[in-house]
Amino acid sequence: MPSSSFAVPVERLIECFQSLPGVGRKSAQRFAFHVMSMDESAAENFAEAILSAKKTVFCCAACQNLTDAKICAVCSDDDRDQSTICVVAEPMDVAAIERAREYKGVYHVLHGVLSPLNMIGPEDLKIRELVLRVGAGDVREVIMATDPDTTGETTAVYIGGLLKPLGVRVTRLAYGVPVGGHLEFADEVTLMRAIEGRREL
Amino acid sequence: MPSSSFAVPVERLIECFQSLPGVGRKSAQRFAFHVMSMDESAAENFAEAILSAKKTVFCCAACQNLTDAKICAVCSDDDRDQSTICVVAEPMDVAAIERAREYKGVYHVLHGVLSPLNMIGPEDLKIRELVLRVGAGDVREVIMATDPDTTGETTAVYIGGLLKPLGVRVTRLAYGVPVGGHLEFADEVTLMRAIEGRREL
Repeated sequence: MPSSSFAVPVERLIECFQSLPGVGRKSAQRFAFHVMSMDESAAENFAEAILSAKKTVFCCAACQNLTDAKICAVCSDDDRDQSTICVVAEPMDVAAIERAREYKGVYHVLHGVLSPLNMIGPEDLKIRELVLRVGAGDVREVIMATDPDTTGETTAVYIGGLLKPLGVRVTRLAYGVPVGGHLEFADEVTLMRAIEGRREL
Repeated sequence: MPSSSFAVPVERLIECFQSLPGVGRKSAQRFAFHVMSMDESAAENFAEAILSAKKTVFCCAACQNLTDAKICAVCSDDDRDQSTICVVAEPMDVAAIERAREYKGVYHVLHGVLSPLNMIGPEDLKIRELVLRVGAGDVREVIMATDPDTTGETTAVYIGGLLKPLGVRVTRLAYGVPVGGHLEFADEVTLMRAIEGRREL
């Protein structure tokens, strides 16, 4: 063991954890030592969960969300409005919108946003699949629900430009002050957008 | 898929990540989606790293630190002073002290601290092993390097009480203001200890 290092299998596990988003060396160490303090069966379950998630989860043929079926549960639900598509960047965004229990349409997951700095162009996202889906007809509205930041905004505008010629209504999530927040803590741009988008009481 | 939930294998992986210390639902989701976006081989490597760390890493027969050999690299290093034992709570603390490149003795890892609130008593820690080790002779000094908090302090005092009758010198890490810190941000107890422990310039 070189000083300030661990046994090889420990080091390897730490490096695996460190590859996760937002996990630094210290957290990775804590995770690794936690795994080593688990029961043998719990550790086996963890390893098996990684393999099984990787092997049995695919993109839904319709909406590209992650699913373990050919067509995901939302797309195959007859109660959902198939003529409204909510376009999001990541599968986690679908979960966030589902938690609001308000939206009754279906989704389209792009698996990323346009980001020239990171060399991510239109062909790296599921944009072609979205255009084909809208082009096939029966879609009335596409709600662009990418993040309200620069790359999310750019992606929304770019995709809007592709879809509008197909005769579909393209909308964007409302900007404004978050419910339960304080005006005091809202930034200027959000406040400006909130005033622009004001509604009759 | 019930609303606000994921496919079963995804949910299972999220739960595994959520069992790690300090990881909440949202981080666990991010980790799980990251794993699913990995190459097949990277995911297999991750799963294999968990199993191999769990299976090939044991406690060193001498110091109880985690190692993949019978006796760890520190204990089997002839250049280390075997007559000085630094007692720490966790394997990560060994790594922290090794990073300082100052300590040339060996270690003893307790694998926890005394904590009546969490039902952790002396028999749950590697205290018996330490007492046997010191009792076997050849040890001149035991440095108690448990955390400078309530449980760490209690553990240090308790173990000190067991070891002193064996005729060994028992010391404790120095308390004081951290190097590079600001007096302004030091708490009262630390400042008091720093003044108590003042040294000639």
